[in-house]
Amino acid sequence: MILKVFFAIINLMEKEDNLMEKIVSLCKRRGFIFQSSEIYGGAAAAYDYGPLGVELKNNLKRLWWEEMVKTRENVVGLDAAIFMHPRVWQASGHLAEFTDLLQECKKCHHRFREKDLPDSKCPMCGGELTKPRAFNLMFETYLGPVKDEASRIFLRPETAQGIYVDYKSVQNAMRLKPPFGIAQIGKAFRNEITPGNFTFRTVEFEQMEMQFFIDPKEDKKWFNYWRKERLKWYLENLGLKKENIRFYKHKRKELAHYAKEAVDIEYKMPFGWQEIEGIHNRTDFDLKAHEKLSGKDLKYYNKEAEKKFIPYIIETSGGVDRAALAIFLDAYTEEEVRGKKRVVMKFKPQLAPFKVAVLPLLSNRKKLTEKAREIYEDLKNCYHSWYDEAGSIGRRYRRQDEVGTPYAITIDFDTLKDDTVTVRDRDTMVQERVKIGELRDYLFKKLM
Amino acid sequence: MILKVFFAIINLMEKEDNLMEKIVSLCKRRGFIFQSSEIYGGAAAAYDYGPLGVELKNNLKRLWWEEMVKTRENVVGLDAAIFMHPRVWQASGHLAEFTDLLQECKKCHHRFREKDLPDSKCPMCGGELTKPRAFNLMFETYLGPVKDEASRIFLRPETAQGIYVDYKSVQNAMRLKPPFGIAQIGKAFRNEITPGNFTFRTVEFEQMEMQFFIDPKEDKKWFNYWRKERLKWYLENLGLKKENIRFYKHKRKELAHYAKEAVDIEYKMPFGWQEIEGIHNRTDFDLKAHEKLSGKDLKYYNKEAEKKFIPYIIETSGGVDRAALAIFLDAYTEEEVRGKKRVVMKFKPQLAPFKVAVLPLLSNRKKLTEKAREIYEDLKNCYHSWYDEAGSIGRRYRRQDEVGTPYAITIDFDTLKDDTVTVRDRDTMVQERVKIGELRDYLFKKLM
Repeated sequence: MILKVFFAIINLMEKEDNLMEKIVSLCKRRGFIFQSSEIYGGAAAAYDYGPLGVELKNNLKRLWWEEMVKTRENVVGLDAAIFMHPRVWQASGHLAEFTDLLQECKKCHHRFREKDLPDSKCPMCGGELTKPRAFNLMFETYLGPVKDEASRIFLRPETAQGIYVDYKSVQNAMRLKPPFGIAQIGKAFRNEITPGNFTFRTVEFEQMEMQFFIDPKEDKKWFNYWRKERLKWYLENLGLKKENIRFYKHKRKELAHYAKEAVDIEYKMPFGWQEIEGIHNRTDFDLKAHEKLSGKDLKYYNKEAEKKFIPYIIETSGGVDRAALAIFLDAYTEEEVRGKKRVVMKFKPQLAPFKVAVLPLLSNRKKLTEKAREIYEDLKNCYHSWYDEAGSIGRRYRRQDEVGTPYAITIDFDTLKDDTVTVRDRDTMVQERVKIGELRDYLFKKLM
Repeated sequence: MILKVFFAIINLMEKEDNLMEKIVSLCKRRGFIFQSSEIYGGAAAAYDYGPLGVELKNNLKRLWWEEMVKTRENVVGLDAAIFMHPRVWQASGHLAEFTDLLQECKKCHHRFREKDLPDSKCPMCGGELTKPRAFNLMFETYLGPVKDEASRIFLRPETAQGIYVDYKSVQNAMRLKPPFGIAQIGKAFRNEITPGNFTFRTVEFEQMEMQFFIDPKEDKKWFNYWRKERLKWYLENLGLKKENIRFYKHKRKELAHYAKEAVDIEYKMPFGWQEIEGIHNRTDFDLKAHEKLSGKDLKYYNKEAEKKFIPYIIETSGGVDRAALAIFLDAYTEEEVRGKKRVVMKFKPQLAPFKVAVLPLLSNRKKLTEKAREIYEDLKNCYHSWYDEAGSIGRRYRRQDEVGTPYAITIDFDTLKDDTVTVRDRDTMVQERVKIGELRDYLFKKLM
């Protein structure tokens, strides 16, 4: 019995490791994600989004922006620079606290995170280790030709601070009153000692986050509001499976230095439940610190109510790359069709890189390919479309399944007679004949 | 006569300086562009796009992506990491050649670009200068905790190299045959000694570029093709004024080390004609260099034709921030309306941050505001819309003019009787009465 359980667990672990391998391989083969600078052996923990990956990622970011900015009257956007004034990181606490404790081997000079060490010897050579020393996770560089303290700047380790230091300018320009939000998508950088798990933990990553400025008395209410809104977005807008998503509430001792309350939205990755978004009550920690260090009044002043206060901030901070990885894992499906394995990426149509594939039944019949191109040229202005005439129609369907194209349109000999085409549904594989003149409307109803 | 010409020139210069000042001021006041970290006195030559700026910039990037990727069968997208393998910059020539010659004052230690110096004394203190020394324009940082040669990496000074090192992976995954293109939008970084002119020259900037891989024999043809296509885009898709755009062909001695032929698309900025995009014939310079240094075969191999060659590359490299600045300058219009000055940003509707403003005639009549909100709630799902009830209707129109909103919808007392609203055209200021039920269609025809 115990052996049986043991093997069941091993099996499960293999299956899940396997899934990660399959995703990495499919992503590379089909142009979703490549390792950066692969011809030089790769750049450590950096990845490039290929032709299909960039479309999916853009769709993801667009859906987020529509949800968070375009359809909300009290949330506006921002795109702050990666380079900021160095004092920002002094106020935010990143300069002092954003550190890992590292120990160096006195013999081989490798460095290790204190918490990763099984005992106090070097795992590489058995040598003696130094005492733990703080190592800051911010990447630093120098502005201008002189390398000194005065010219040292940092790559932002989070996008949030750009919103905080601009909040008064934004509030004034847009004449906003709390509760209001500022949303941003952008890159951030952390010199992680142990990146890994494909695109899950990388030193360069993209955040999509919204900072919501509120009356401090209403923090509980808004924290709960955003917690629910954000979960709903992953389930309904991205279509992730309910069983793969959960909340994880931070215990008091786990809270970051700025947080009063924090909950993670976690996704069930093959390597365990992992955070894909955090919702934090950051209180007035950041604005107070910036007010103190900059000497600028960062209070919100309401003339009518004669109220003056530093807003509390509820933050929803998601990882673009992590959400994309969750989408890949969630969509990956293997099915048996007439004794053969079919791999389908069951993306929500709004996320799929291409919406429509246009396929002439045969590539060596001019009448078929001409008609197919005509249809492709018409559709591509409405939907991101892909024309493909290489290989058997069965293989072409499989190729489209593997990249998650929701609809495949085939131009066959009947098309030449009656101006109809077949439209194949990715998930059901059912084919319907549709009049060419009605294609746009047909697809519009299916895809919107 | 000579005096008259002199004063005319002075007048013109003042007017143009003035325009730049007006743009900077409007951008800040209305939430298009803020200086980064302004509460700390600003970060050198870094800017943040505010709520309206980020929408305009996103529209600009989306239009480019539609033009270059979505509607072209032979161009695909990519989003490569900012961090790349350091050898990339060795192959590209950036490590050796991407330098400024600087001279340092032996007394006050300020540094100057050799070419900026009027004579060979320090312009700050008159002290003696050192001999010119090469200073690399790439920002460097260190990956991991150890700062040594092996861990030194760079912030990419151009996005192009990400495309070059990935080109075989992309070509394989998408089964592309020359001529084909790979397009990318992303940030790049250059440690410019003399940034300036608002967002025109900054150390952190965004590029939108496409690399077109061709048979070397066809380089003339494709260079000319892209030259024309790109000019057309600025004129027709962005709607920039013809008199503000021109080509500048590089003379032989001006060509970059990788270029065989180069032409700039220049915009007439208040500070002179300036490059906003470059079209370059980069030949096989980059791919050859990467092939040599990486030891990987980067030839394109065509089985059917039994051809094997390193493609030539025609590059179209545009600056997102520069195009945005050109759009601001081009759109800025002052008009006299009934004795008063009106400032209008005459953006092409596709570029405008908001498409529609919804304005109840009065804010203190519940029936008007309720109806207005109803219309706003309906329209916001189709068009980025803005609800505004603060201040007189005349002031609200002016506010919308200043941020370039093409249509303003006013809900007045007639609305409550006959379910019509007025739609005001930003440019003509003409108001038309439209049935609420027909609003969506009316706007669709105007905005598409």
